[in-house]
Amino acid sequence: MDKLMQDANRFVSDIVDGLVLAHPNQYEKVEGLNVVKRKGGAIADKVGLVSGGGSGHEPAHAGYIGDGMLDAAVCGEVFTSPTPDMVLEGIKAADGGAGVLLVVKNYSGDVMNFDMAKDLAELEGIQVETVVVNDDISIQNEEDRRGVAGTVFVHKIAGAAAASGKSLDEVKQVADKVISRVRSMGMALSPCYMPESGKPGFELPDDEMWIGIGIHGEKGVERKAVAPVKDIAAQLVEHLTAEVTDKRIAVMVNGMGGTPVSELYLTYKYVSELLEQKGYEIVRPYVGNYMTALEMHGFSITLLPVDEELLQYLDASSKAIGFLV
Amino acid sequence: MDKLMQDANRFVSDIVDGLVLAHPNQYEKVEGLNVVKRKGGAIADKVGLVSGGGSGHEPAHAGYIGDGMLDAAVCGEVFTSPTPDMVLEGIKAADGGAGVLLVVKNYSGDVMNFDMAKDLAELEGIQVETVVVNDDISIQNEEDRRGVAGTVFVHKIAGAAAASGKSLDEVKQVADKVISRVRSMGMALSPCYMPESGKPGFELPDDEMWIGIGIHGEKGVERKAVAPVKDIAAQLVEHLTAEVTDKRIAVMVNGMGGTPVSELYLTYKYVSELLEQKGYEIVRPYVGNYMTALEMHGFSITLLPVDEELLQYLDASSKAIGFLV
Repeated sequence: MDKLMQDANRFVSDIVDGLVLAHPNQYEKVEGLNVVKRKGGAIADKVGLVSGGGSGHEPAHAGYIGDGMLDAAVCGEVFTSPTPDMVLEGIKAADGGAGVLLVVKNYSGDVMNFDMAKDLAELEGIQVETVVVNDDISIQNEEDRRGVAGTVFVHKIAGAAAASGKSLDEVKQVADKVISRVRSMGMALSPCYMPESGKPGFELPDDEMWIGIGIHGEKGVERKAVAPVKDIAAQLVEHLTAEVTDKRIAVMVNGMGGTPVSELYLTYKYVSELLEQKGYEIVRPYVGNYMTALEMHGFSITLLPVDEELLQYLDASSKAIGFLV
Repeated sequence: MDKLMQDANRFVSDIVDGLVLAHPNQYEKVEGLNVVKRKGGAIADKVGLVSGGGSGHEPAHAGYIGDGMLDAAVCGEVFTSPTPDMVLEGIKAADGGAGVLLVVKNYSGDVMNFDMAKDLAELEGIQVETVVVNDDISIQNEEDRRGVAGTVFVHKIAGAAAASGKSLDEVKQVADKVISRVRSMGMALSPCYMPESGKPGFELPDDEMWIGIGIHGEKGVERKAVAPVKDIAAQLVEHLTAEVTDKRIAVMVNGMGGTPVSELYLTYKYVSELLEQKGYEIVRPYVGNYMTALEMHGFSITLLPVDEELLQYLDASSKAIGFLV
């Protein structure tokens, strides 16, 4: 698998540089680090929002920086947690004096490194809280559930709450409310390939697919013959609706990076039909490449039961390039 | 190559249905046809804008419907011109009494069918003008140059002019101004595959690439070993800057459908460096999958020399889901 790439050792910094160059009025890099912050720095007296983790999930996480969403994003190497020092720089860049919320996906490296950064920031007098996203129901054991595309809803909703002037405790509370509700599951027709080694994340013959994949090249929980998309969607919807019983929902059909938008809309048709047949009311649909895994071809479905508070935050203005409202 | 697909015979209508279902407040389908129009119909006394052609280029063309851009899009089968009857329905849907401009890409089938539709519409008393986009400099002979990603700039700028209340003649004039200036060239690391046959548009060994490809599976003008992205970009930039001599430009780095946004930003870094070294000033950068060729992995570069009029129209508000401003 070929990539549009200059040098595998600079893969992430080249992506970050390109993002900042393409949006010079919006983004700025912390000198010498793959840490991106809001141009002009933190907003005084607003709760700062920081996310990040390994790279390869673009537009996550830096593409979600912008008025109404994140203030800084910490971009580790591909599928590799950033160091605590990098996270600390992200926290400092986001701190406007009202404290900082860290939105962390549930991977041991991220949880550990963001936690160490929290301690370091507190030593410098910055108030920090953390939420951990674990929306991937492919994993049975709840403690081990990974954070995937549902993280984008946490960014959007917590970001809108912060922008509306809520306190750090209040922003954390609404982020935790989203986390308690949001569930995702994904599939892949093809693996992703690591920039340095050129190796695929998993083996997958051309006529087979994985159900229940992760976003770091983790193979799924079931390998089977490629099927018509309605059958695939039905399987994911079956698992998701077993856990999500509230019927008024936002739905995200998320591409894994190499999925053309045409196939995502086509997929959404069947996902929405299946959900409506089960009595769900889709009040906010989102279709696009939001939380990717390099060039993997596949999709995930995310369901978020909403109430008026969450809807209001979903609909609030966002200038983040990955989630314009 | 597998696709997320239900039935090859319904590939396009499934995409169109999904798009309309996902944006129910914005889009609506002309009953029984793959013709998409602005929800609520034409805007009275505004020049209507219609585009379209073969499908497989999503978000083009229906994704560019919205306040500030198109009013209707006519979606032929994959890489196949829509019939004159379909185009006529698009024209009728877009006509608010001030006439309709057709934005056509330079392919013989499209030019012929949109032209026949124009005649049919005029018989029904609708004033229609046409512009033909031919930005692809891969083709030496100017008459044969294809319309590719530069078409999106025509949609945006003509759309903004129409929204600002300009007359049909004036909107046509500014569209022609864009067409006279805009130039594009693309490349591919992999082909696209037709939904019905599963056949690739062209043959391409894994370690080679095509320079100068089209957006319908047309092979390029030069096949060579895959190179670092800066070398690829340098070759495209060399050809483009030979034709575009005005130095104040908008630049689009456009993905071909299967290109992850990470690689597009990475590519933009080198494209922008190369252009700036040649003395170009990039005043508006655009990076994304704007005019695609199914799941093809590759990119194109589009250069548009701008003046204050074009900048004002580029920056004007757009609610089209493929080009939000």
